[in-house]
Amino acid sequence: MQQVYFDNAATTQIREEVISAMTEVMRTNYGNASSSHSFGRSSKALIEKSRKTVAGYLNVSASEIIFTSGGTEADNLILCSAVRDLKVTHVITSKIEHHAVLHTIDQLVKDYKIAVSYVDLKPNGKIDYLHLETLLKNENKTLVSLMHINNEIGNVLDLKRVASLCKANNALFHSDTVQSVGHFKMDLQDIPVDFITAAAHKFHGPKGVGFAFIRKNSALKPLIYGGEQERGLRAGTESVHNIVGLETALKSAHDYMATEVAYIKDLKQYFINKVESELPNATFNGKSGNMEKSTYTLVNVCLPIPPKKAAMLLFQLDLKGIACSKGSACQSGSNQNSHVLTEILNADDLQKPSIRFSFSIYNTKEEVDYVMTVLKEFSN
Amino acid sequence: MQQVYFDNAATTQIREEVISAMTEVMRTNYGNASSSHSFGRSSKALIEKSRKTVAGYLNVSASEIIFTSGGTEADNLILCSAVRDLKVTHVITSKIEHHAVLHTIDQLVKDYKIAVSYVDLKPNGKIDYLHLETLLKNENKTLVSLMHINNEIGNVLDLKRVASLCKANNALFHSDTVQSVGHFKMDLQDIPVDFITAAAHKFHGPKGVGFAFIRKNSALKPLIYGGEQERGLRAGTESVHNIVGLETALKSAHDYMATEVAYIKDLKQYFINKVESELPNATFNGKSGNMEKSTYTLVNVCLPIPPKKAAMLLFQLDLKGIACSKGSACQSGSNQNSHVLTEILNADDLQKPSIRFSFSIYNTKEEVDYVMTVLKEFSN
Repeated sequence: MQQVYFDNAATTQIREEVISAMTEVMRTNYGNASSSHSFGRSSKALIEKSRKTVAGYLNVSASEIIFTSGGTEADNLILCSAVRDLKVTHVITSKIEHHAVLHTIDQLVKDYKIAVSYVDLKPNGKIDYLHLETLLKNENKTLVSLMHINNEIGNVLDLKRVASLCKANNALFHSDTVQSVGHFKMDLQDIPVDFITAAAHKFHGPKGVGFAFIRKNSALKPLIYGGEQERGLRAGTESVHNIVGLETALKSAHDYMATEVAYIKDLKQYFINKVESELPNATFNGKSGNMEKSTYTLVNVCLPIPPKKAAMLLFQLDLKGIACSKGSACQSGSNQNSHVLTEILNADDLQKPSIRFSFSIYNTKEEVDYVMTVLKEFSN
Repeated sequence: MQQVYFDNAATTQIREEVISAMTEVMRTNYGNASSSHSFGRSSKALIEKSRKTVAGYLNVSASEIIFTSGGTEADNLILCSAVRDLKVTHVITSKIEHHAVLHTIDQLVKDYKIAVSYVDLKPNGKIDYLHLETLLKNENKTLVSLMHINNEIGNVLDLKRVASLCKANNALFHSDTVQSVGHFKMDLQDIPVDFITAAAHKFHGPKGVGFAFIRKNSALKPLIYGGEQERGLRAGTESVHNIVGLETALKSAHDYMATEVAYIKDLKQYFINKVESELPNATFNGKSGNMEKSTYTLVNVCLPIPPKKAAMLLFQLDLKGIACSKGSACQSGSNQNSHVLTEILNADDLQKPSIRFSFSIYNTKEEVDYVMTVLKEFSN
């Protein structure tokens, strides 16, 4: 049976050169990077080279990159320490953030009695920048946490605008950039954001490794205590092979970015055209149907499918070999609607099935054609 | 130049079958285990199979195994949640625990004002069980955290005795078993411990993955918030290849345990004999010179080396291709004495260099001979 993987916002296929680099490290560099002997030093050298590579792509210093077990841990580290150690008492976020942010904030409310404000959203999921500005006018020590690219609807935040607003109002700014690192070039000298996070498996790297960018002199402290790894900010023996995998994946992403972005953009445009011509009653959630205002990697489509068929849609698509999702993988399996769509759709549209299709270089137009054929069957 | 890796307590060489299994997973199972489609389900199936394997070796249920990014994170999860969620107000530990435990407890003292008692140690580092019993007689909600095998001196805790003492006194018991899982058989139906932790890279598995055993109905909550992975106890996309690597390494460890333990024991005995015959003024720290009362994987030797030569000893050994350590890798590089030896040695012995040599199946008697030749040069 044909297998179509259109769930690249959940995770991506690992590039062959990433697997090779990791295998090589596992075979030849098993030293503990904290050991002072030659076996340890060569592992340490690999990690520091990776750190420098990552820092180079973001135009920051290597000391500002802290490797973690993934994007979720990086978000937790930043949010928890901002509250506990930087004495943040007020967090501004939105109701369409990833659960790694929202659930962590919920816990911080319980533990530290911080205040939380949710910035208003336009019907298409756009952040209301004026409301954000109003919220920033307060006397509390404030942290803003808004993701760069929404993982469900692909909306792109104006990072520079928000970063500048925060700076002007003495607020700290954290952005979950898990859907943008490795997909877009970012120059953090130009964007005064304090903290960003990334996960290698979102850009064809391994699962179980990510990083936090923590701007110099931020005074954050660890979430995980023990040894002095990662400049004392993250204890635990470093996963050398995973870190090298992250580096290799990020390097490939940047080396091939021009051609690969063009390829995927073309695929998304093709998908949108097909939907518009073959499923005329379908609509695009958020800004995902707008090539200029959403990321090039995903669309989120509200499908004109009768309720009876809708209930089993994902299951039926899976039977046809098509992998896609209702929203974040972290919520799939649950029967609840996506918390993101719940915020932005009207009651009618919420009744219809919405599906996120997300693309990578490993997808083809033939796969889009196949998916369209299947979706048309269901729409009848 | 000859290279001798005698630092297997810091980390171990990855078995070839582990690397193969991980590579295979990375190539063919890239789905996100939280996705409900076939790609996700096959990753999920791999993780659940790994969980079942691990649980089987410990004689516990699969639901009691929570995969983490390593031993340090697992220790942090248990200690933090015991205090925050189980309302532990008193922790009993010892001054020779790993920093993943001691530094986490230090932070908990700051955040939650818990009381900490340190159990007395005999001069050889043995826990004073009678003192522990006295400490347990108190009205506070108490957690005991004592490691199974000390990573620096190899002393073995009587897990069952401590677990039973804790149970009799209504205290929770956590044991960092990072140096024993994969090295010894453990039946947790027979040992009423509440929590243990492990790291794959200590038993020829990959770095960046470990697990916490959390006994059923313990009511722990996460350290890292976000998605509902690991039964809601540890958010973040699972590192499928690392988890399968852990499983494969643990399986090999158990499959070959009888012959491999015999091989390494023989090597350690050979090392001890050599030290006794060729370095008659050397002494063994803790119980590491006693084959019955210490782990078979390491010795910690206090060397009769003149102070002038002692300062550069590790550096000189490294130049000769010998990898070993002063203590935990997590502290190496620092000029401070090991916190473990500081607790148990007298002032005279603390002036002399102490070195931990730790062994694995990849070591040979020829390597021991070579190390002895080098050590004898320094002792003159």
